[in-house]
Amino acid sequence: MVAPVSLARRAERLVPAPPPRHDPHENISFDSGHAFPGILPDLSAVAQRALSSRATEMLQYGPRQGLGQMREWISDYLKNDHANVPPDEVLVVNGAKHGIELVCRLLLDEGDTVVLTAPTYYTALPILRSFGASFIEVGQDGEGISVDWIEDAVQWLERNGRPRPKLIYNIPDFHNPSGITMSRSRREALLGLAQRHGIYVVEDSPYRALRFEGESQPLLKALDTSGLVINVGTFSKILAPGLRIGWLACRPDLLIRMMQLKTDGGTSPLVQRLLVDYLTKDRLARHTELARTTYREHRDRMLLALAREMPDVATTVPQGGYYLWLKLPGNASGDELARRALEMGVTIYPGSKFYAAQSTGYPNSAKPELDRIRLTFSHAASPDIDEGVRRLAAAWASMRA
Amino acid sequence: MVAPVSLARRAERLVPAPPPRHDPHENISFDSGHAFPGILPDLSAVAQRALSSRATEMLQYGPRQGLGQMREWISDYLKNDHANVPPDEVLVVNGAKHGIELVCRLLLDEGDTVVLTAPTYYTALPILRSFGASFIEVGQDGEGISVDWIEDAVQWLERNGRPRPKLIYNIPDFHNPSGITMSRSRREALLGLAQRHGIYVVEDSPYRALRFEGESQPLLKALDTSGLVINVGTFSKILAPGLRIGWLACRPDLLIRMMQLKTDGGTSPLVQRLLVDYLTKDRLARHTELARTTYREHRDRMLLALAREMPDVATTVPQGGYYLWLKLPGNASGDELARRALEMGVTIYPGSKFYAAQSTGYPNSAKPELDRIRLTFSHAASPDIDEGVRRLAAAWASMRA
Repeated sequence: MVAPVSLARRAERLVPAPPPRHDPHENISFDSGHAFPGILPDLSAVAQRALSSRATEMLQYGPRQGLGQMREWISDYLKNDHANVPPDEVLVVNGAKHGIELVCRLLLDEGDTVVLTAPTYYTALPILRSFGASFIEVGQDGEGISVDWIEDAVQWLERNGRPRPKLIYNIPDFHNPSGITMSRSRREALLGLAQRHGIYVVEDSPYRALRFEGESQPLLKALDTSGLVINVGTFSKILAPGLRIGWLACRPDLLIRMMQLKTDGGTSPLVQRLLVDYLTKDRLARHTELARTTYREHRDRMLLALAREMPDVATTVPQGGYYLWLKLPGNASGDELARRALEMGVTIYPGSKFYAAQSTGYPNSAKPELDRIRLTFSHAASPDIDEGVRRLAAAWASMRA
Repeated sequence: MVAPVSLARRAERLVPAPPPRHDPHENISFDSGHAFPGILPDLSAVAQRALSSRATEMLQYGPRQGLGQMREWISDYLKNDHANVPPDEVLVVNGAKHGIELVCRLLLDEGDTVVLTAPTYYTALPILRSFGASFIEVGQDGEGISVDWIEDAVQWLERNGRPRPKLIYNIPDFHNPSGITMSRSRREALLGLAQRHGIYVVEDSPYRALRFEGESQPLLKALDTSGLVINVGTFSKILAPGLRIGWLACRPDLLIRMMQLKTDGGTSPLVQRLLVDYLTKDRLARHTELARTTYREHRDRMLLALAREMPDVATTVPQGGYYLWLKLPGNASGDELARRALEMGVTIYPGSKFYAAQSTGYPNSAKPELDRIRLTFSHAASPDIDEGVRRLAAAWASMRA
């Protein structure tokens, strides 16, 4: 049951953050989903104050479900987003990935089928695999995951006497890596299917607050009347990844069992208190606005640089989030481009990283598109975006030569 | 695979810390293993400084294995304790319980046998159970876990065509709840058995630094030449539980696989940095000395109060740690005493909490001793220790009336 995480994945974690200004000898990172260092919050005053006045709360064991005020904060945040989640239906976890792991521990048995998009968030794959999941991969269009496709897969499983999928994993807002946001009608159709067949839906939505333009669509959790949606949230993209705080919002019976499985001594009350004290309504609004403005500028800068340097390569134009998803012409290999880009001093992720690519026998499974690459625009400063795209274009030119 | 954690266990986490001075209407807590609030460290200045000058390191994703300086710190700490563990063989985790969970994820398959003492640390039980472990419970004497007893169990499994135990879980120093510290020769015998049969040994040693008197015995990890020992450590008892930082120290091949299973986005680099910056050699020595002095006083205060108020009840006199383990005369029920004590305003844990009490068919399994209670002396202030023992004595008297 050991997750087949590649060494590359491990190495990725160990790459130091790049400098804010470029240097021909320093790598520029368009790969992992780091925040822009320039907008990381200053928690020093809040930490100083809280650790002086609330040491007992912060330094003893905290309640297993999370600090009451933290759960109230998350409940308010979700209510503002039209999802009526009371504090009792929130479980504080050590980041979204830990939330996904707890969902797997609760719901998955060896051999269970999980439905996901192809491509999908690569880090979810080893977590799901480590619990023995097998995958059905379906496609997306401009409105998001194809519900007809899932229906076809469910029918196929049924015809072949196999159990229904246990869960559908998806990123409905600014999908990673494709940038697609599900339309409202597609969300409703997905929930209809889930309810018809009794399949849990894991809504992983870290980028939701980072909308640059266009209209927000309702959370799946807000539309859900069946209790089948488990909303997974995180402060990594709201504020900062290093906090390692996220949440699960779901039906109380599921929550209680996940809380029992959460045997880690409680998520750090120290960090929860920092969050609660820092994230007043004003500061949340200000920081969200700053993040939106910054990342919209980064997206536009990268789109402009790509149009200038690599006009033959097609890219998505996501309305928010962290990523561009590029399609190379002529079936060129994303893996090859990633290798050459690394030599030129810019790291990117090849499309191959985002596919489970695991046959469950389902004949209509979505196929990996190996002519893709993902570029992260969040992390690098604007001059580095320009220089990184120049390096990428040079790598690309070397492939076309 | 859901852990059968009782609701009582859940409720326990939600009990607020008692006040430093007693009040007839306020409960006094001798139950869970909290630190004494009076010696919690002041991290405010370190936090203020670190978050001002190292925001990028603290607020981005950290390396999956843990911050380099954190692993160096832990390596030095273990080397000072004669265990030659290089930083590369340390994995930083979210507290010791999370470490135990990762060990289970790596090593345990449904139905695997785990050897542990009866009684044992109650929180390990639901973690082990949630991975489908079945238990062989063996006794202890003054030198620790009975290796002959384990040998007998291994022979019995073999005779019955069943697989060897996958791991032995133990707390060699100031055992929770019995307070026993394994002698050096018993440690060597345990490692000999482990090596003979190829059984992993999980050394969970949170209280090790809290020795009040007597001579320290070597870490199992320091004596291990087989690579079968996995040392689980935590800062909860070195500094403060609310940090939620611990470690695993083990063979690189095991560590790499547990790191792959640690899909939580890395343990918070923010909290790791606070620890590294706070725990200079001087501060560590000072804090350890303060904790030793404080907890020795608490132990002695509680022993004195018990001798005065409950002279008919036998207690262990541990050389360190957090707990006393009491034996009631006349087979009186620890559960009944815990219920009555709660009514009198003092919470304690009955002995029944500390036994897996699960038959694997092994005929010589150690039986639960239901005439036991555990008292935590770490948490309550001295006047509360006196008052709590008075309340407990009143509850006890009511049972004898």
